[in-house]
Amino acid sequence: MEFTEKTLSTRRIHEGRIINLREDTIELPEGRTGKREIVEHKGAVCIVPVLPDKRVIMVRQFRKPCEESLLEIPAGGLEKGEDPADCARRELREETNQATGNMTHLFSCFLAPGYSTELIHCYLAEDLREEAGTPDEDENLNVEIYELEELLAMCDDGRIKDAKTIAALGMLYRRNNF
Amino acid sequence: MEFTEKTLSTRRIHEGRIINLREDTIELPEGRTGKREIVEHKGAVCIVPVLPDKRVIMVRQFRKPCEESLLEIPAGGLEKGEDPADCARRELREETNQATGNMTHLFSCFLAPGYSTELIHCYLAEDLREEAGTPDEDENLNVEIYELEELLAMCDDGRIKDAKTIAALGMLYRRNNF
Repeated sequence: MEFTEKTLSTRRIHEGRIINLREDTIELPEGRTGKREIVEHKGAVCIVPVLPDKRVIMVRQFRKPCEESLLEIPAGGLEKGEDPADCARRELREETNQATGNMTHLFSCFLAPGYSTELIHCYLAEDLREEAGTPDEDENLNVEIYELEELLAMCDDGRIKDAKTIAALGMLYRRNNF
Repeated sequence: MEFTEKTLSTRRIHEGRIINLREDTIELPEGRTGKREIVEHKGAVCIVPVLPDKRVIMVRQFRKPCEESLLEIPAGGLEKGEDPADCARRELREETNQATGNMTHLFSCFLAPGYSTELIHCYLAEDLREEAGTPDEDENLNVEIYELEELLAMCDDGRIKDAKTIAALGMLYRRNNF
């Protein structure tokens, strides 16, 4: 059984800086109609930067929707037409002042598929070398460096509470155990 | 250095069924002002249901924002005032017709902390027994059962592309390796 939800009409609600919002009226498989609120987002990348000594570079920043500072892997939004791997290199430099000689795609995923179109591409960055980037004016980041084992413990005890970060650290752990 | 973003004013944009949208004008640390688009969500739970033979129960459903069917762990939204663990038991029954004798909190995380308030609580459900639930009218789910190793391979090759699912499977893998 394969279900789809055909769009009958669309109401545009908000055209914003980071996101748009629309409401689709859809046809459900049984012929009934329904509504779907959909946040439109251009997509994003995130990067697990691993130093030669195997420690991981993290960033901490205040996240207004959460009203607290979160410890996350570096990440950022795709610019129009930008290749995700180029975006990952750019964000890595902007946020951590590191260039990478070896980048591997780990996974791509939707962050909140119930209501958001945002697809994020996750990369492992190795063979790092310092190379100053130009930070984003609107961001205030602190860089922090940890052992992977400590980061995994932080996922368990709630010190890390960001989905892409937990996903990326879990996949890195698995890769190291292969 | 600890940064915060003080709210100067709020513009309400949308009051919806699943989400609301507002735009906050904020004071940045340097005294400049900025805007933050914020999707308000009541929060959610997700569950990794593990059968006695160690296989994992998954659900596949069409996700309108993604315009495709995604394979995910069971999940659902918190009702007003609902305890997350109670919600997890309810969603597990509704989506998979299973009751659990043993539920463990794995992690809690924000799905898209750049623009959404949604916090999701993830549980491991074991000691499962069949117990018919009442499916959500608006959902069309297919239940599928897999070995964990196959699910992890599906995170690598793109057959699974849901952040909470990749995070949960990674943390389950790590738990099993402890």
